[in-house]
Amino acid sequence: MNRLGRYTLKLSGCTGIIGYAAVGGKTEGEGPLAGEFDYIYPDDGIGQPTWEQAESELHRDAVMRAVTKSGKTAEDIDMIFAGDLLDQCTGSTFGIKDMNIPFHGVYGACSTMALALATASIFADCGAANTAVASTSSHFCSAEKQFRFPLEYGGQRTPTAQRTATAAGAAVVASGQTGGILVDKVIYGRVKDLGVTDANNMGAAMAPAASCTIKDFLTDTDTNPADYDMILTGDLGVVGSELLLELLQTRENIDISAVHNDCGKMLFDIEKQDVHAGGSGCGCSASVLCSHIFNRMKRGEIKNLLFVATGALMSPTSALQNQSIPGIAHGVNLIYR
Amino acid sequence: MNRLGRYTLKLSGCTGIIGYAAVGGKTEGEGPLAGEFDYIYPDDGIGQPTWEQAESELHRDAVMRAVTKSGKTAEDIDMIFAGDLLDQCTGSTFGIKDMNIPFHGVYGACSTMALALATASIFADCGAANTAVASTSSHFCSAEKQFRFPLEYGGQRTPTAQRTATAAGAAVVASGQTGGILVDKVIYGRVKDLGVTDANNMGAAMAPAASCTIKDFLTDTDTNPADYDMILTGDLGVVGSELLLELLQTRENIDISAVHNDCGKMLFDIEKQDVHAGGSGCGCSASVLCSHIFNRMKRGEIKNLLFVATGALMSPTSALQNQSIPGIAHGVNLIYR
Repeated sequence: MNRLGRYTLKLSGCTGIIGYAAVGGKTEGEGPLAGEFDYIYPDDGIGQPTWEQAESELHRDAVMRAVTKSGKTAEDIDMIFAGDLLDQCTGSTFGIKDMNIPFHGVYGACSTMALALATASIFADCGAANTAVASTSSHFCSAEKQFRFPLEYGGQRTPTAQRTATAAGAAVVASGQTGGILVDKVIYGRVKDLGVTDANNMGAAMAPAASCTIKDFLTDTDTNPADYDMILTGDLGVVGSELLLELLQTRENIDISAVHNDCGKMLFDIEKQDVHAGGSGCGCSASVLCSHIFNRMKRGEIKNLLFVATGALMSPTSALQNQSIPGIAHGVNLIYR
Repeated sequence: MNRLGRYTLKLSGCTGIIGYAAVGGKTEGEGPLAGEFDYIYPDDGIGQPTWEQAESELHRDAVMRAVTKSGKTAEDIDMIFAGDLLDQCTGSTFGIKDMNIPFHGVYGACSTMALALATASIFADCGAANTAVASTSSHFCSAEKQFRFPLEYGGQRTPTAQRTATAAGAAVVASGQTGGILVDKVIYGRVKDLGVTDANNMGAAMAPAASCTIKDFLTDTDTNPADYDMILTGDLGVVGSELLLELLQTRENIDISAVHNDCGKMLFDIEKQDVHAGGSGCGCSASVLCSHIFNRMKRGEIKNLLFVATGALMSPTSALQNQSIPGIAHGVNLIYR
């Protein structure tokens, strides 16, 4: 493993994605990517008595599908890196608790998929794990209940608010790969806090962190946006994406508009579905990456992807206490060979 | 890096602790280890307007003291691995947010110090970071408010309940060390759930995980308890420690009683202080390790330490929903040379 510049890590080139899966809920099943998901649940209850257990079941399902698709069993997995947005990360822990796999909890809010995938890849690359899973989940109902209002309250959402995805995504990473989707580089972000305090405008809170990580990565690797088939942010949504492009353009003189897309803009049909500024939640970028994006990479349509997932590091308590919303963005550079 | 057996990772032998620090609150300052802490705050408010901000300030202080003691500045640190018990880990994120260090959030409940230290050590060992920080914190008042009752309610605690430590600990890990306190091996635990549902008896919920990790480690390394100067668990307290010894003795035929101690039993004077079954919280094992234990190692009094921190992976919501409390335990084998 080599360090490139100040923040970027270059892997050996032999660590790759050997399996992946995404599952989603009803609204995700009405979106444009539904056909690429491994399974769409017809009811967001996911057959569970509580929303929290529903999220855990989504998480469990995505992991087991990814492991099976990789040709492995849970016994073959050396480590699982997982986390989510629920208090004390119970979406993950209750989802994976019976798998008997060494468990490394991670926390990065909606940046969790990039964080988990980066660390799983480093562990595989350095021999700390031969095969590792990176996974995360979110659920609209458990997130609304925890971060905003109970659904029964019928609160009106602001136009800048994003809809938490009812979805989970999982990827199986292994060393010793000679081709396919490979993890080439990773970058861990620094916390950026520009003082945004509006918990209904997460995109604005996270855009500075995405801008910082993308700029750091391009600087460290001495590359330009045109060197990538896609720079894919996690879930900035419509508002945050616009801010990201503007921040990079005006402050860093970097124009990513030709190659940029955002999972929060892709998961739903923003014109037709009632999702305001787009999708969000850990499961948003995880499920888009582990379905549509990896499918496109496997078909050779995307050969060089910079995936930058963003997270808003606030809690309901910090929001009530009028604290600002610190953002973070972690990046994974995936190539298809 | 080599894998030993099924679960244990053997590092190169050149990754070590180059700095550490612990800070605590008033009750910790009245305990037997107070003289070994870097700073004791006279008031648990830590000069902050909220308990949550008080915890973040403790966290920040411990990290900066450890970095300074290592002879480094924040700019020299490649990564910080941190987490805590507050919802969305805000104790950590708000504590470290202005340090401008790449941040890897981890979640392991009270096992966080072992988890963060294990991963920081792997990153240093494989070249992903030259210098990394592992840190965590907890605060009695923020934890009571979040997990049990507001302090003002004056709820009576059960005899099996533990007192969350108002404390933070941080360690700076670096590669290229030839002596001192070295990280020799690490082990990541599997989630163990024996169906305990009593949120006032965390020790009982975590003991099975500690038993599993200790047994796995001894099996993988083909060693016996007598090979260690100390097997130090995180914060099982009085009740959980007894259960751990019994579980290992009766189910695994392993007797660790001669070398076992527990941070939850060491931080406070359990006879004289009103702490029921002992200390707990992420900051308990972190502050005991990063003061008393590392001090003893540096004096050569402990040359081979197996540190196994335990975590209860529940949330207030999962407890209210009558879910069981899954436990986890991660281990770090430290040697002094």
